Amino acid sequence: MSAQDRELLVEKSPLPDGVDERIRRQFTFLIEVDQLKAVLRQSPLASAPRRENDAEHSWHLAMMVVLLAEHSDEPLDVARTVELVLVHDLVEIYAGDTPLYDGTAAEDQLEREVCAAEELFALLPGDQARRMRELWDEFEARRTPEARFAKAMDRLQPLLLNWMAQGGTWRTPGVTADDVRRRKAVIGDASTALWQAGQRLIDEGQARGWDR
Amino acid sequence: MSAQDRELLVEKSPLPDGVDERIRRQFTFLIEVDQLKAVLRQSPLASAPRRENDAEHSWHLAMMVVLLAEHSDEPLDVARTVELVLVHDLVEIYAGDTPLYDGTAAEDQLEREVCAAEELFALLPGDQARRMRELWDEFEARRTPEARFAKAMDRLQPLLLNWMAQGGTWRTPGVTADDVRRRKAVIGDASTALWQAGQRLIDEGQARGWDR
Repeated sequence: MSAQDRELLVEKSPLPDGVDERIRRQFTFLIEVDQLKAVLRQSPLASAPRRENDAEHSWHLAMMVVLLAEHSDEPLDVARTVELVLVHDLVEIYAGDTPLYDGTAAEDQLEREVCAAEELFALLPGDQARRMRELWDEFEARRTPEARFAKAMDRLQPLLLNWMAQGGTWRTPGVTADDVRRRKAVIGDASTALWQAGQRLIDEGQARGWDR
Repeated sequence: MSAQDRELLVEKSPLPDGVDERIRRQFTFLIEVDQLKAVLRQSPLASAPRRENDAEHSWHLAMMVVLLAEHSDEPLDVARTVELVLVHDLVEIYAGDTPLYDGTAAEDQLEREVCAAEELFALLPGDQARRMRELWDEFEARRTPEARFAKAMDRLQPLLLNWMAQGGTWRTPGVTADDVRRRKAVIGDASTALWQAGQRLIDEGQARGWDR
């Protein structure tokens, strides 16, 4: 959908006159991103019989960064790492979630997500739009310790949920334990200790037949 | 429920042997707090016809802190403010959500939440349990600029959702626009600019009859 065609969420109940212009733009964005709560992921929750949404997932990653940052192999700016996980999925509001084991959807994923980023972040005041875009680009490029750790959490968290579901998306037809290991190996780019623990879960899951 | 009676979520699929002891405690906690996604709040989402849960709410507050911190009347440690909102509702996993306009539930709220905090945070390694408890205590006491701003976001976010719902919980029987103003006034303890915008929404909502 092009930017011209899209109705913003705030248009369903437009903000009144008399709100400061900068705050109006910030509120408009903050209302628009409420939609992250409606983007469903493949992962099943551990605590309820339904799939997880992107907003819950992003909160969970932020908690993981705060508690697991000590296991990073490199020194970490924890605050920026938290910001990276808070914003990393925002583009999915317009671009949708691309399942980890779906090769077809992955093909045009980057193009769809770049368009989404440009449209979504443009709702903010210019300086903050640039800041959000920088954070998202940093996450995607994985060239800083913070981005590598954020990405590692993004792969470790569904691993914990799949463990709790005794299989979950590991049971996707055609996905083998080796596929899982390959996709999850980026955890090891950030933390030897956490990848060791992650591999232990994958190995044990395979031993129990949870990949079938 | 006492700590002895409670079955931890992880017991449904116990972690395997061979996971480092500190990481095991951290994973146990991170799995247990998946339940924040199942604690329902009163607020309706702007993006879907259902109530919000605590995990989505916490993510939304973190985004608000990142984008609105510039409006704080006092200098702010943004990173710690984000941590405050990430953990502020965790105790509700065991203590439940207490609606803002429910006086009866509010009476024993603190006692229930203190018990919940002690039980939940004890799952973590000692140093991290103490850190989580300090963050939660800081949020509740509202004596630092960071805690005041975090609390302000906790009150401003449902105000935005109620605006989008053209009433929402403002329509709770017996709740007047003045009740809303009283409960929301803590926004002004953190940010004059955001409270001005917030009041504009409440005033306009009342003028349109959304409080009835």
